[in-house]
Amino acid sequence: MNNTNHGKASLPVIKRLPKYYRYISQLNQNGVTKISSSELARMMGTTASQVRQDFNCFGGFGQQGIGYNVEVLLGELKKLLLGEGRKIPTILIGAGRLGTAVSRFLTIDANGYELLAAFDSQEPPVGRDLDGVPILHISQLQEFCMEHHPVVAVLCTPRSGAKELCGQLVELGIQGFWNFSHYDLSVAYPNVTVENVHLGDSLMSLGYRLRND
Amino acid sequence: MNNTNHGKASLPVIKRLPKYYRYISQLNQNGVTKISSSELARMMGTTASQVRQDFNCFGGFGQQGIGYNVEVLLGELKKLLLGEGRKIPTILIGAGRLGTAVSRFLTIDANGYELLAAFDSQEPPVGRDLDGVPILHISQLQEFCMEHHPVVAVLCTPRSGAKELCGQLVELGIQGFWNFSHYDLSVAYPNVTVENVHLGDSLMSLGYRLRND
Repeated sequence: MNNTNHGKASLPVIKRLPKYYRYISQLNQNGVTKISSSELARMMGTTASQVRQDFNCFGGFGQQGIGYNVEVLLGELKKLLLGEGRKIPTILIGAGRLGTAVSRFLTIDANGYELLAAFDSQEPPVGRDLDGVPILHISQLQEFCMEHHPVVAVLCTPRSGAKELCGQLVELGIQGFWNFSHYDLSVAYPNVTVENVHLGDSLMSLGYRLRND
Repeated sequence: MNNTNHGKASLPVIKRLPKYYRYISQLNQNGVTKISSSELARMMGTTASQVRQDFNCFGGFGQQGIGYNVEVLLGELKKLLLGEGRKIPTILIGAGRLGTAVSRFLTIDANGYELLAAFDSQEPPVGRDLDGVPILHISQLQEFCMEHHPVVAVLCTPRSGAKELCGQLVELGIQGFWNFSHYDLSVAYPNVTVENVHLGDSLMSLGYRLRND
């Protein structure tokens, strides 16, 4: 894989990579060893040309005549998505129902991350643990970050207070946010990397489509 | 608002509507009465031309010289997104951590939906309730659907079994899915309306961007 090609991938391409990874993992589990771009496209509801264009952003993943080698492709996608070295040190802010639920994506399914600690302002959950990760009081945030240098923060807080909290987290060295609060982080902090997950938005657009399709 | 214009809105436009709704709600709460497309665009990190194009898909929302009337705009967006009549009757499949967490978007923040019941195969949570909504055993699904006619199913189940379950739900009259399972529903059922929420995908693409930005 040619690392110098990474810069070519646009955000929509990057956002499609995990879907390729899911389908290729499934094929590998099912014992499939070769797959053509057109077969893969059909399974995924896209086009062969899209698949080839997307893969070309990462050096092409070596398609040879009859198709891609599933195991090689899986390895390359895994390296791209989960990294090869140290897991990304991460903290969770807000250990309520939603924070507790999404923490599983960082602990049980690690996805390339390591959850170091969770923070909340209420007791409980402060003092409990989350799949082996301590839930600390939010007042310990600064000291913790200065000692452990987390890189990603998962925000499961209400919209109110999210703005101030984000500013503090950026100052404490946080470079990426997995943001479930209603606050649109990317608008205020263009230099940090943000995945906004607006669950209410998703539900409202589903409702619109159901009423109008 | 001209209802005959609805057909013009593409999926990306529809997916942006809730974001407009959030920003306009906030402006309204802050006592702002008029907003221009360029001011709104700046707040939202987009362009004035994008805002006007998006709004034109729904009849334009009556911009007059100095801008949109915030209250009128909010009312129109609310009608589009939350509907004007009966809430969408909805069931939740899988009342584990994630199902319990996302159920709040259908109960406490109703978002135009009414959660009728949740289903699970384990006891507990079967027999408990979820913000006043009963958690029933999955064996009661068919009988419940034939009596109560839910339109949307929220899927918070593991990937295994999701395919069979979806087929059964479509046969029972489900027209829309808010899908948190790893199973890509839209590929298998092109005629139902689906919002896939792949949280693992979101986290993996964040990781990729952090390592390569």
